[in-house]
Amino acid sequence: MPADVFLEPEGTREQILAATYRALCEHGYSDLTVQRIGEEFAKSQSLIYHHYDSKDELVLACLEFMLEHFEEAFVDDDVTGPRDRLEAFIELILGDDPDGKSRQFFASLIELRARACHDDDFRAHSSRSDRVFQAYFADVIEDGIDRGVFRDCEPDRVAAMLVTTLEGAMLRRPTNDDETVWLPALRAELQTYLQQRVYADGGES
Amino acid sequence: MPADVFLEPEGTREQILAATYRALCEHGYSDLTVQRIGEEFAKSQSLIYHHYDSKDELVLACLEFMLEHFEEAFVDDDVTGPRDRLEAFIELILGDDPDGKSRQFFASLIELRARACHDDDFRAHSSRSDRVFQAYFADVIEDGIDRGVFRDCEPDRVAAMLVTTLEGAMLRRPTNDDETVWLPALRAELQTYLQQRVYADGGES
Repeated sequence: MPADVFLEPEGTREQILAATYRALCEHGYSDLTVQRIGEEFAKSQSLIYHHYDSKDELVLACLEFMLEHFEEAFVDDDVTGPRDRLEAFIELILGDDPDGKSRQFFASLIELRARACHDDDFRAHSSRSDRVFQAYFADVIEDGIDRGVFRDCEPDRVAAMLVTTLEGAMLRRPTNDDETVWLPALRAELQTYLQQRVYADGGES
Repeated sequence: MPADVFLEPEGTREQILAATYRALCEHGYSDLTVQRIGEEFAKSQSLIYHHYDSKDELVLACLEFMLEHFEEAFVDDDVTGPRDRLEAFIELILGDDPDGKSRQFFASLIELRARACHDDDFRAHSSRSDRVFQAYFADVIEDGIDRGVFRDCEPDRVAAMLVTTLEGAMLRRPTNDDETVWLPALRAELQTYLQQRVYADGGES
């Protein structure tokens, strides 16, 4: 974390969405304004208004763009084994965060989820986001079963568990001051779960 | 859900906090005002201002009160076995919600967590809340191990996993439209986890 999907934005639209992402991470959702997005944008602010009508439209477009490109952004091409892919994703959420960037990104996501409680468009996005990540996990697990490196577990159920647990961690990390206590415990327990339930070598690794 | 801790509030202070709870569930945090709390309060609104200075002070006092009384409020005295206590708590979060009351309560909690991302007092409360629930789970698990009905698992680790997963579910329920898909999968998988990791009768039950 955070996304490197916006490292080299191509064209005006992507540059606007990249500016939205940077401003969102810096200010959080509630303090975000179109003007602050404009301050992150190298070209004329009027281009933003030409493409988008409101802060929410910008934020939703930014989130949708990130979701569309999440695999290329978050998933390292060199990581191809099912177990490594699982572990890499878990590491994105539960990994060390020395500069606080993950925490900052998760804080923005929690603000957006709070918005999703009462806004149909935001809730439609978070539903779609959950579906994409759950399908990704189920896919990786099925691949592992096919290759004989994972047990014959139920991919959809395991995926539901992983997505829910990782979202719980995304909720806790920016809202809990005791991360040094519960996060190592969670990481260890998640490994125990995966070894008992998913990895074919079980407790051996 | 929701709390019956406020069913018979004793004295003015508890009546104010009960009114805060009802107003919070009805309006959500962002649309909550002291006036709306006053509308839920049977006595004179000036009594509220006499005791509390702001909406946030009221909300934090309400949350702290619920946390102090969560066992008497949420935990049925007749449920004494460790396994039943675990299952009862899980049911509170993952159970059916025909009238949408749980979803509404969880939505308020997510709004408060969003606030906790940027407010020290709210974050101190959510940290404390997490500690209380994690200690509760660890306690129940230790009791189960002592009684020989649970495996010799690591209570603190399992507790961290359960609290994080259930908080993930609290985040998803009000912000995801596909509950009929992922919630049954999560419930089933959580049972598999508990049977493999915690319950001494394992896969047999």
